[in-house]
Amino acid sequence: MFDKKPRTSVPVNDLIARRWSGRAYDSTRPVPEKHIIALLEAARWAPSCFGDQPWRYIICNKHKNQAAWDQAFSCLSEGNQSWAKDAPVLILSVADSIMSKTGKPNRWGQHDTGAATMSLCIQATELGLMVHQMGGFNADTSRKLFSVPEQYMPMAMITVGYQLPLEKIDGEVREREITERARNPLGMNFFEGTWGNPYRENQD
Amino acid sequence: MFDKKPRTSVPVNDLIARRWSGRAYDSTRPVPEKHIIALLEAARWAPSCFGDQPWRYIICNKHKNQAAWDQAFSCLSEGNQSWAKDAPVLILSVADSIMSKTGKPNRWGQHDTGAATMSLCIQATELGLMVHQMGGFNADTSRKLFSVPEQYMPMAMITVGYQLPLEKIDGEVREREITERARNPLGMNFFEGTWGNPYRENQD
Repeated sequence: MFDKKPRTSVPVNDLIARRWSGRAYDSTRPVPEKHIIALLEAARWAPSCFGDQPWRYIICNKHKNQAAWDQAFSCLSEGNQSWAKDAPVLILSVADSIMSKTGKPNRWGQHDTGAATMSLCIQATELGLMVHQMGGFNADTSRKLFSVPEQYMPMAMITVGYQLPLEKIDGEVREREITERARNPLGMNFFEGTWGNPYRENQD
Repeated sequence: MFDKKPRTSVPVNDLIARRWSGRAYDSTRPVPEKHIIALLEAARWAPSCFGDQPWRYIICNKHKNQAAWDQAFSCLSEGNQSWAKDAPVLILSVADSIMSKTGKPNRWGQHDTGAATMSLCIQATELGLMVHQMGGFNADTSRKLFSVPEQYMPMAMITVGYQLPLEKIDGEVREREITERARNPLGMNFFEGTWGNPYRENQD
């Protein structure tokens, strides 16, 4: 993978720094089954409110179940289809809206599903895989095609695969892939002591 | 930190395996400022839908702003107060319900905030810190005390600090801390191809 590490004011873990949602996948390289299991194990051991594990994932591996992959692909927006076509694995993440232990609404269902997927992303980076979560898919269609019960909310369609080597990426796609990553300044999202008080990076 | 690594069918990244929401904090050890910044940077570089970065965090460090820490502590349930009292840092995570780029509802606000906090947890593990997210706090109280605008939803109160060495943990607390971690069997939350079809760990 080519390096997309951001500049940070202090060092952060290498996997966190290198994780990145690229779009140029190598369509010729399947994902080994043991790696897929490792991604799922990483998600499985994420924390959740009251240990309820509200996440569900439907794995659609083109090299194992082309019909399921086709279904997942058909849910994507055209823009996402244009590049996701090369990803050998599509995963639908789904959040439970009900706390299984109590039968009452779980207000952390989506939050905890996002956490589990982040764990999956970090594990993928360790294995040399690239993950890209998409909000641009038809949730209703995915619900119908994959028989997702009403109580669960489709959250993201996720691509998994190997990144295409930089020398094989051309034109506009290449431009997009090598653009420097960006985030808000730290103090815009992180506050000290109360709302809106920017956290400063040099406090010592 | 004592080892709470789970058994997994294939190896997972060591930080993902060791991350664990314990309760026994060492009240005598402050968290260095540079480590706090590293946690925030880890969260900052998490992925989000359309790059909207819907997460907000209010950091309350007992060793820097006792009043803010006291406010955060006062939001916790009694059960959580009983152990969170020893954590030197409390952080309130908050999710934006509106997409800042469009002004429309962001249905991934909570999901992406959960992802950012997971990144923070992994970074904490690397730095030898322990993080525990709590749903057991009064969200309305936290909103009032920290002036969180209506558009944002308080998601979790988060403890950060160093774990108390095992030999210093007594009685019931010790029992709780050394209990083996547990998760649903993989096939309960992870499906192959369609809803409810358990993903099997040995597919090859």
